[in-house]
Amino acid sequence: MALKHVHFVGKLLQSAAEIESVIINGWVKKEHRKGRWSFLHVSDGENHDTIQVVLPKDVGHNVGVGSAITISGKWTKSGGKQQAMELLARDCRVWCKDEGKINITSVDQIRKFPHLRTKHEAFASLMRMRSKVTSDSHRFFADRGYVHIDTPLISSNDCEGAGETFIIKASNDDDFFGTEDKYLPVSGQLHLEAMTSAFPKVYTLNPTFRAEKSLSRQHLAEFRMLEAEIGFLDNVEILCDEVEDFVRHVVAESNSLVEDKSRLGIFTEELDTESIGPLADVVSSINRFPRLTYSEACKMLEDRGEKIVDGFSKAQELQLVDLCKSPLFILNFPSEQKPFYMKRSSDEKNALCFDFIAPIVGELAGGSIRETDAEKMRSKMDSPSLSWYYELRKRGTPQTGGFGIGFERLIQTLFGIPSIKDVIPFPRMKKMKFYISQISMVKLKRRYFLVEDLSEDGRIIKNSVAVHAIMEKIKELFGDYGAAAAVSQLSRRPIKAPTGMMIFRSSAECAHFVEKALPFVTKMGDKFVQLRLLRKSSTIRGLYLFAWEEHNRRVYSMAADQEKEDCLQTMAVTTGKRVPKSRNKRIWD
Amino acid sequence: MALKHVHFVGKLLQSAAEIESVIINGWVKKEHRKGRWSFLHVSDGENHDTIQVVLPKDVGHNVGVGSAITISGKWTKSGGKQQAMELLARDCRVWCKDEGKINITSVDQIRKFPHLRTKHEAFASLMRMRSKVTSDSHRFFADRGYVHIDTPLISSNDCEGAGETFIIKASNDDDFFGTEDKYLPVSGQLHLEAMTSAFPKVYTLNPTFRAEKSLSRQHLAEFRMLEAEIGFLDNVEILCDEVEDFVRHVVAESNSLVEDKSRLGIFTEELDTESIGPLADVVSSINRFPRLTYSEACKMLEDRGEKIVDGFSKAQELQLVDLCKSPLFILNFPSEQKPFYMKRSSDEKNALCFDFIAPIVGELAGGSIRETDAEKMRSKMDSPSLSWYYELRKRGTPQTGGFGIGFERLIQTLFGIPSIKDVIPFPRMKKMKFYISQISMVKLKRRYFLVEDLSEDGRIIKNSVAVHAIMEKIKELFGDYGAAAAVSQLSRRPIKAPTGMMIFRSSAECAHFVEKALPFVTKMGDKFVQLRLLRKSSTIRGLYLFAWEEHNRRVYSMAADQEKEDCLQTMAVTTGKRVPKSRNKRIWD
Repeated sequence: MALKHVHFVGKLLQSAAEIESVIINGWVKKEHRKGRWSFLHVSDGENHDTIQVVLPKDVGHNVGVGSAITISGKWTKSGGKQQAMELLARDCRVWCKDEGKINITSVDQIRKFPHLRTKHEAFASLMRMRSKVTSDSHRFFADRGYVHIDTPLISSNDCEGAGETFIIKASNDDDFFGTEDKYLPVSGQLHLEAMTSAFPKVYTLNPTFRAEKSLSRQHLAEFRMLEAEIGFLDNVEILCDEVEDFVRHVVAESNSLVEDKSRLGIFTEELDTESIGPLADVVSSINRFPRLTYSEACKMLEDRGEKIVDGFSKAQELQLVDLCKSPLFILNFPSEQKPFYMKRSSDEKNALCFDFIAPIVGELAGGSIRETDAEKMRSKMDSPSLSWYYELRKRGTPQTGGFGIGFERLIQTLFGIPSIKDVIPFPRMKKMKFYISQISMVKLKRRYFLVEDLSEDGRIIKNSVAVHAIMEKIKELFGDYGAAAAVSQLSRRPIKAPTGMMIFRSSAECAHFVEKALPFVTKMGDKFVQLRLLRKSSTIRGLYLFAWEEHNRRVYSMAADQEKEDCLQTMAVTTGKRVPKSRNKRIWD
Repeated sequence: MALKHVHFVGKLLQSAAEIESVIINGWVKKEHRKGRWSFLHVSDGENHDTIQVVLPKDVGHNVGVGSAITISGKWTKSGGKQQAMELLARDCRVWCKDEGKINITSVDQIRKFPHLRTKHEAFASLMRMRSKVTSDSHRFFADRGYVHIDTPLISSNDCEGAGETFIIKASNDDDFFGTEDKYLPVSGQLHLEAMTSAFPKVYTLNPTFRAEKSLSRQHLAEFRMLEAEIGFLDNVEILCDEVEDFVRHVVAESNSLVEDKSRLGIFTEELDTESIGPLADVVSSINRFPRLTYSEACKMLEDRGEKIVDGFSKAQELQLVDLCKSPLFILNFPSEQKPFYMKRSSDEKNALCFDFIAPIVGELAGGSIRETDAEKMRSKMDSPSLSWYYELRKRGTPQTGGFGIGFERLIQTLFGIPSIKDVIPFPRMKKMKFYISQISMVKLKRRYFLVEDLSEDGRIIKNSVAVHAIMEKIKELFGDYGAAAAVSQLSRRPIKAPTGMMIFRSSAECAHFVEKALPFVTKMGDKFVQLRLLRKSSTIRGLYLFAWEEHNRRVYSMAADQEKEDCLQTMAVTTGKRVPKSRNKRIWD
């Protein structure tokens, strides 16, 4: 049927009058039977609501939780006490059942499956809220006369050589772009600035990228940035005003999301209850966000015993939020902390810039007045890929100022979501397998090494000490590059049984570094070791099984040699004789 | 001053009453002098309008066309005949003059300089219109209950192996994503589909990429796609309804852009006057867009002597538009022309799909009902990177249908712009130098090695042979990993003078491989060599200068030893005595 004939669950619930003919689409959230009737709770995904559908047996039964269905029937007074109205089905079409074995009600489970995550109600709420904030953001800037610019995603700029960029190549044509390398952008700022030679205010909400090595919950390889640039502007306070207006706008609009907000408990429960809490809850009670200078912020922290080294750590930023009981602006950082495109104060000591600090995330936005003197910039950063940018300074581009807001961080701080990976539909990060599937599973290429220490010294070696010792040896043998290649990958995997064996993991590419270095490792921390490589494998399971068999073989051979009683006890613990076969592996990992 | 105190030129023009104190920002479009007065036409970029500013000599003169200025003064009755009101300046601040030598009034000139293009009024109008259509599009989908999804731009899917994709790599970490290749997406459709397991309607307006070999005016490497996916839908006509509604919506909204539209003459003058013309001009007079089946469309063309081979050419599409005197839908193409994810008719002969054909661009949108049978799809296209997608078919995802609209093509067909490169702020395509600059400069992080061959054998060594020899030695000394790390970066740079010196370039990271390998390279091809590293540098210029000085020193010392005449000739050629100092480097590279 045409889309306009479909009823929305949310609207239907507002109707206390009977409606003879109703059609809804949706998903079964709950199902139970009573005699010849099935009772379904159905949500249509437009919002948070569910309605009760009553299904006579001849219309349908065993529909199944998770199924996608279309119901046509009559909207009528309910016989039950939980709801005033219900939908009495005349027809039920089951489009697709949910045959999955993944438990979608467990947040930790569902996190591993981005393509199924929104089947969990909290994730669905979060995505609806993200969509609403997206739409509100566009409206805010459009209503203020900003021109939206799609800044390019194929860029010549390598982000100041910081090395955290992604290179783009055509898959079948190395020479597609000619000889220059092309990159995914870390910001659209410079291109926005170019547009201020014709428009007084421009903005973009565009993807940005960083080959971020950290795997923490604060980092993504791909994220969205809301960036704005304003012409004829030389005052950083005006930029702050615009950011504050914007934040207040999205907070005010988010009031309509109260139902979705109520579902975020699974995300917010681990938040620090001492802190001021998500912006959506607190902003309206704060009159004006405080504005501190960098020195004032330093002093505030130093008075509490903090040591400031080149700007603030995230913990220090959050401490400032708590001290001010508000999100806050920090203005005019020391020159040497900030990049070439920021204008400096007349004494060159400070950059005319701000950071905006918010709960949960720390730095949410940053902005500055832009340098207008091309030669000053060139003395700090000279690159052929920037010549067009410097040229703008001689082509009638007014003094501008601008800011960037991390869009995922905005969602986090608005609603109190600790992990950035939860607020983006399909998180991308280092080493991530984008899709873990039930159907076919191809693993990342790793190598596992089962190593035995033949030395007499029975002391336990810490993981970090063991890994460090191997790393140092790789560095000695293969130089920093070998070590650098291996470093992010090498780790030790646990063996719980007292076997004197160790397992190390590395990437397949770096396996030869590890293998060659192992025999030369003679000391781990202050302990002398004598390592023997027992086996190498591409799966840890293979090593665990081998280690288990090898250990059992040794214990049994000991038992044959020595007094039996002693050994049997060890065997019971380590060979898993007393545990069900299916759980044997547990003993080892 | 705060942004809210700035007047908009467009609004000011509507005021026939005098205003004592007015501030405007903008750009000088015209300037002429008469006695002690300058008369400026100033536009503020918010829209198409200009106002006359009257500038007494003591307030300012020779402001310059293209300059970015702020004027404060009085809004008052004009003495001239061309305008009712004018701004009498009390103060004039010139932010930045336009010192450029590029003629921004020539469209063909300005096209080469994307960062300056919007200084031309027609391009400025076009970008404002693009921004408006962006904003209208978001409103259309938000108002209809679509959830906006940021589909990912780092993707595992190589687009059916068609080879027109871009690969992404971290610039400093080959293993960033593990062993699988990652691509820039050609569509967000599959990820949108995943979201219809929770939301009935989703959409995105996201960048997409194609390593398009064609350099024609119809092709870009980076463009935007508006994509929508609708759940609980098995009827392709409903998709067509939605596309038609959308097109009519943006056309209706574009009526407010009439002033900007009037500026597009420079783009539209080359359009075929026989055709029906831009959508924005014709749609409102068309009752309902015609819907033909593929066979009907074929017949219509064949009746006019056209030969149809596997779908329609762009010329044939435009012929259909002219025959129908309307944009049109073509439904249900033959199965074999369409990809694996489209549902087939029950006899498998046709795909349940449509193309939407529009003036100027031909195919503007395409859509289909999606296949629900995972096994059927797998038989056509089996890839581990799609397993998650097939899994959706068993996880309560309803039958869906969806469509994609090329956003640049939408702007083209709405307003009649023949070249796609004109409607995107920063066009990206094959072989494009993104910025042609007047200024010039330095390079990325590389290391250059100046190497001398001390052997007696004076034969020239081919670049590839020299590089291969070093590579083999790195492999021998550091294994495949070292070679792999170095391989993409190592190259030989030319020295034209007959010095027996060679220059090699490597990345900074791999420099130590090269440096350590050099002394061990004893053969290049069939020539025995004895290499000495003269100098290492991070710029090739540094090496050229050193090589030049070193060579000169040697030649002079030879000249002292031997017969002078012989040497002077060499010196003239190689030391650059006869060329201006500034061009010395030329001799070497």
